[in-house]
Amino acid sequence: MKVVVVVGGVGGARFLLGVKAALGLPAVGAPDGASPHQVTAIVNTGDDVWLHGLRICPDLDTCMYTLGGGIDTERGWGRTGETWVVKDELAAYGADPDWFGLGDKDIATHLVRSRMLRAGYPLSAVTEALCDRWQPGVRLLPMTDDRVETHVVVDLPSGERQAIHFQEWWVRYKAALPAHSIVPVGGDEAAPAPGVLDAIAEADAVLLAPSNPVVSVGTVLAVPGVRDALRKTEGGVVGVSPIIGGKPVRGMADACLSAIGVETSAEAVGRHYGSRRCSDTGVLDGWLVAAGEQADVPDVAVRAIPLLMSDVDATAAMAQAALELAGAA
Amino acid sequence: MKVVVVVGGVGGARFLLGVKAALGLPAVGAPDGASPHQVTAIVNTGDDVWLHGLRICPDLDTCMYTLGGGIDTERGWGRTGETWVVKDELAAYGADPDWFGLGDKDIATHLVRSRMLRAGYPLSAVTEALCDRWQPGVRLLPMTDDRVETHVVVDLPSGERQAIHFQEWWVRYKAALPAHSIVPVGGDEAAPAPGVLDAIAEADAVLLAPSNPVVSVGTVLAVPGVRDALRKTEGGVVGVSPIIGGKPVRGMADACLSAIGVETSAEAVGRHYGSRRCSDTGVLDGWLVAAGEQADVPDVAVRAIPLLMSDVDATAAMAQAALELAGAA
Repeated sequence: MKVVVVVGGVGGARFLLGVKAALGLPAVGAPDGASPHQVTAIVNTGDDVWLHGLRICPDLDTCMYTLGGGIDTERGWGRTGETWVVKDELAAYGADPDWFGLGDKDIATHLVRSRMLRAGYPLSAVTEALCDRWQPGVRLLPMTDDRVETHVVVDLPSGERQAIHFQEWWVRYKAALPAHSIVPVGGDEAAPAPGVLDAIAEADAVLLAPSNPVVSVGTVLAVPGVRDALRKTEGGVVGVSPIIGGKPVRGMADACLSAIGVETSAEAVGRHYGSRRCSDTGVLDGWLVAAGEQADVPDVAVRAIPLLMSDVDATAAMAQAALELAGAA
Repeated sequence: MKVVVVVGGVGGARFLLGVKAALGLPAVGAPDGASPHQVTAIVNTGDDVWLHGLRICPDLDTCMYTLGGGIDTERGWGRTGETWVVKDELAAYGADPDWFGLGDKDIATHLVRSRMLRAGYPLSAVTEALCDRWQPGVRLLPMTDDRVETHVVVDLPSGERQAIHFQEWWVRYKAALPAHSIVPVGGDEAAPAPGVLDAIAEADAVLLAPSNPVVSVGTVLAVPGVRDALRKTEGGVVGVSPIIGGKPVRGMADACLSAIGVETSAEAVGRHYGSRRCSDTGVLDGWLVAAGEQADVPDVAVRAIPLLMSDVDATAAMAQAALELAGAA
């Protein structure tokens, strides 16, 4: 079976562990032998940023480290056993910005990536090279090889209205500055990375992970061609709601949703994604919501099950339900 | 008094400690108040290299860390209390080269430098910015802002004759491959960094540190304009021999000297630098050699004193003798 999963960072990476387990693949790492199943993750790159001359790809790295067994499982991002010597030294030089946590182990990844990018390799090729080490057991594709960066229009503490990089809003200001709008800068002119459209076209099922609907899944959907491919694929397309008990499970998705005028509810997010059949822009056949949530999404099959990714088994059950709703299991 | 010192890395940095002490400046760090003395170090940049996308300037950093109190005093290079997390991770990615010791603390310096260089700042401005933190108490000037890299023509273990970067010859092969020739690539077209020629012209004394006469001092002298400035300055020019007991005090200077057909002796090196007065290319008025060495250098005043830089006091005595020989003390 060919499964495509559209993902962001921490939540997306954890969901991928469940997808692999649901398909009988080892959650972490690559299968020993051949498997009839192929999982392709299309990963948001709108959070990517140049910092200290290094290209940081938080969502790609979170997926790679999580699936390759290198993630700090408590924090959910970055490397296990991480150290922070370089960061402290950069601070001693007064190098800006000082609010982004660049660990030493992580920096090696960014050094390898930045050097390859500067040598002219596209991000997709760089990601493949990095995955040679990590063997995530999933094909990790950046949504695009082009530079797309999510910017957020906010009123700074100084009172000035300004578009700042998503990372500055998210990490530095903890999304506490109300967002007037959220824009994937460069998104209009980006092309899907090699393999993205083919993977969607050939998929038996496409799952939208319970990642941030605006700045993770939404950014991938904004890459020209991706939405159309989702609407046309013969595989079923099922979204997994990130809302439990009327709140985002993790992160600050409500701050993003309110910026685009969408209520923080399973129904509103489902309607935002929309139906492939009864709307001109929708992408869903099915919408998996958390047990206890109500969601009426016109022309979309809604199913409610427990959605907390508390461990790999619970996550595998979610993925299994999503695959079933997509008609692929 | 204005003193200019032409230096390489470890030996040059230690000699600078002595020069400062001889002038009554604190050896490490900047003086508390104003001092009538100004020391300018013109630092070899021929060892500089791009590694892992980072610009490494070994001699500038060794001087900066040594004079700023950050050096690993036992090793003589790199930072005290250094860690090696990034290096190990780069090796886990199979990133080449793996033979150069990039410490975590050190990497922060290279990140700040590389980012500024890529933003268009010249190396001299970058060095000044880095020295804001380290306060070396000496003006550290790179010999040039242009890219000059010393390459060494060797027969590789494979039998192939090839020009390799000095660092590869020195660090990877420990200078054990005989050098057919040593060339400062880019040297012909380099311009002295801002301040270099003026500092020499205005100096009361110019000292050539007991650094490698070929790949440290020699590379500085190869920058167009520097040799002429040394020949024309009204200040005395005195070299300090790096040869004790017929051998280089440190490093593998003999391997470099034999590549350019110069014997490893105080006399041969003194004659190689040559007299300002009786030759068309010479730069010396005085030549300070180690007690026990014989050196007859035509038209150059030779003096023999103990030259081992065993501690700051011993080094200060050397610097004092050099300044006296230059007629500046």
